[in-house]
Amino acid sequence: MISLKTDYLKGFVAPDELRGISSAVRKAHDDLHQRKGKGAEFTGWVDLPSRISSDLIKELTDLGSGLAQENDCIVSIGIGGSYLGIRATLEFLGNPRLPVYYAGHNISGEYLHELLKVLETKRFTVVVISKSGTTTEPALAFRVIKGLMEKKYNPAELKQRIICVTDEKKGALRALANKNGFRSYVIPDDVGGRYSILTPVGLVPLALAGVDIQGFVDGAKKAQAEYAKCDVESNPCYRYAALRNLLYAKGKKIEVMSSFYPNVFYVAEWWKQLFGESEGKDHKGIFPASLIMSTDLHSMGQLIQDGERTLFETFMSIDKPRQDVRIPSDKEDADGFNYVAGKTLDFVNKKAYEATAAAHFEGGVPNMTISLSQADAAHLGQLYYFFEKACAISGYMLGVNPFDQPGVEAYKKKMFALLKEG
Amino acid sequence: MISLKTDYLKGFVAPDELRGISSAVRKAHDDLHQRKGKGAEFTGWVDLPSRISSDLIKELTDLGSGLAQENDCIVSIGIGGSYLGIRATLEFLGNPRLPVYYAGHNISGEYLHELLKVLETKRFTVVVISKSGTTTEPALAFRVIKGLMEKKYNPAELKQRIICVTDEKKGALRALANKNGFRSYVIPDDVGGRYSILTPVGLVPLALAGVDIQGFVDGAKKAQAEYAKCDVESNPCYRYAALRNLLYAKGKKIEVMSSFYPNVFYVAEWWKQLFGESEGKDHKGIFPASLIMSTDLHSMGQLIQDGERTLFETFMSIDKPRQDVRIPSDKEDADGFNYVAGKTLDFVNKKAYEATAAAHFEGGVPNMTISLSQADAAHLGQLYYFFEKACAISGYMLGVNPFDQPGVEAYKKKMFALLKEG
Repeated sequence: MISLKTDYLKGFVAPDELRGISSAVRKAHDDLHQRKGKGAEFTGWVDLPSRISSDLIKELTDLGSGLAQENDCIVSIGIGGSYLGIRATLEFLGNPRLPVYYAGHNISGEYLHELLKVLETKRFTVVVISKSGTTTEPALAFRVIKGLMEKKYNPAELKQRIICVTDEKKGALRALANKNGFRSYVIPDDVGGRYSILTPVGLVPLALAGVDIQGFVDGAKKAQAEYAKCDVESNPCYRYAALRNLLYAKGKKIEVMSSFYPNVFYVAEWWKQLFGESEGKDHKGIFPASLIMSTDLHSMGQLIQDGERTLFETFMSIDKPRQDVRIPSDKEDADGFNYVAGKTLDFVNKKAYEATAAAHFEGGVPNMTISLSQADAAHLGQLYYFFEKACAISGYMLGVNPFDQPGVEAYKKKMFALLKEG
Repeated sequence: MISLKTDYLKGFVAPDELRGISSAVRKAHDDLHQRKGKGAEFTGWVDLPSRISSDLIKELTDLGSGLAQENDCIVSIGIGGSYLGIRATLEFLGNPRLPVYYAGHNISGEYLHELLKVLETKRFTVVVISKSGTTTEPALAFRVIKGLMEKKYNPAELKQRIICVTDEKKGALRALANKNGFRSYVIPDDVGGRYSILTPVGLVPLALAGVDIQGFVDGAKKAQAEYAKCDVESNPCYRYAALRNLLYAKGKKIEVMSSFYPNVFYVAEWWKQLFGESEGKDHKGIFPASLIMSTDLHSMGQLIQDGERTLFETFMSIDKPRQDVRIPSDKEDADGFNYVAGKTLDFVNKKAYEATAAAHFEGGVPNMTISLSQADAAHLGQLYYFFEKACAISGYMLGVNPFDQPGVEAYKKKMFALLKEG
């Protein structure tokens, strides 16, 4: 279950105001579901969960089991939406069957040098994820890693060890896959990068790492049904979208996602891309930032408590973490914490969260909490869909096209010009 | 060498304006150096580099060499200023002699459970870093890890494997160290947590991990001399402090530290604590955020290029990274990148940076670049001092006490009340 707690918006957003924008929410909902809003050609993700075939899930699950024997690790090559969701899922769930190394998500020579040192002694399979096959970062990383593989493996084995996730028909990677007979999977045309975690972009590497992709998809499917109704009262996904728009209109320009669960770190990175890239345009949009507590309470906590009152906070909580540690009694009791001996760390962690949410509220920071009852694949699948839909509704309410990213061309044009100068 | 490039402030800050605030810079400088500003009792870091004794450096270096034989790893227990600088240094420099695991920087039961699994089979020494010894996170982590050590080691060996960095006389950890005869080092009273990386807080764990702490301190010493002169033209440290204040006054409320070098990630985290905790008070202060490129160009790039025009950017560049990878030629050239074959990844990375800085400037984001000529311990020591001093000057110019953190008590009070309720 995913729940949304909004007690600490009291005095910042009145219940009337939420009801007052219900027609804007309705319009966003209709635009999205009737595919008549901006960027409607990229809304294939809306009913994607219910369209994922059980054959694909079975094929990928079997493929993953098969590869587990003959590989020490997986290398996932991709950037942006072809990187963050995969990493977010694996780090959130922890302990994959096969470790996954990432490449093609930066242009760092030092990073790739260190990765090559590791890969030299490992048996590995590469998943290259790129719609076009010509995105600079993954293309260059794939070149270099393919070079290493050509030294390690004979052509027949090499062919088995490269899997492409790319366009159905067009592009350099599709051509390469077809020519060389690499196993390949299709990125649909109607789902943009940041909404692609439930397409083969996410499902292929996750299945290879041993994630329960059936549960993952089932969670998203549940979300598709649960968040379909246009009602800000009963639908927490729409409620979240509406509330953040109200807060933004009141001058809350920064949304800080805070979690006391370190495994949420990359989920927050994924969320930043989703909301930042969807809403940050036309000189508007909330600036998304993230904090991992209690680490960052000891760095950014001061500013959140007492700095400019232009931010709001969204906590991500987990009711039952997978593991916990009991606090031992200590006969010296030098630190004076014997009074919590016998309790668990998560007990203390949750008190720290409760205290922080209350203190920030009293300090002038409106905040909400999204809670997952469990930290498993199903709940994460549900959460991704929750945010995807909230982002689309929120973007439409803001008046932007939440499915394009015109601003990313500016540096690319300049970069290619500079590269061609040499 | 550290240089500051400010070409892309053109049209945002006029040279006149910089000269116009020179008296404010002068006042901040005098307040700091004559110890008459707010929080003057915590300005021991100003001349700390020149006060670090060569005996201490030798002792710690020898201690580190000695421990290298009988340990598989080090466990560094601390939070905030007793965590971020250590991790920033080790991740920036890469490949430590002994790997370092972190604990006590969160209250996650799952994190500690996973760490205990790793430590069970390792020989390790613990460094516990806490001024009081009663900070919740490190205290609880130390309790649990000491429990594991008591099972693994006999009392004599246990005693050798615990090193405390704490107050000279007061506090729970000092008492524990004295009573048990643990080796200990002193956190001076006149240096606050976020300015403490050059005290034993940083030097002890860094020496154990095999960092060249002599070079590190020499770099900071060089910075102490180089950034002593009160002149915004010739002193890049003061120039940076003055410029960010001018930008803030013009409505640039968010400073994004962007780097194309992934090993800068934790340096940016350290920088966020330094500036966020020093300036985020009295309902003012720049909100510090960070991006690692080109990863985050594919997530937050759109918003930086086209979102609200309330931010400025500070790039962190490295002239000569330690390692690089040459781009191979490919006979198929499916991706079309043969035109950069023979060049290195860092060549492409730097073009991406140049293109990004230019595109963001043209899109309305003023930006500066701080460049390190090399990524070694000496340059990092210099950089830390650069930022510490810039932060103090900047905070004084803003009119706040850059050395206190009154806001962090709010959640702590509530947390202890909740914990005591049980």
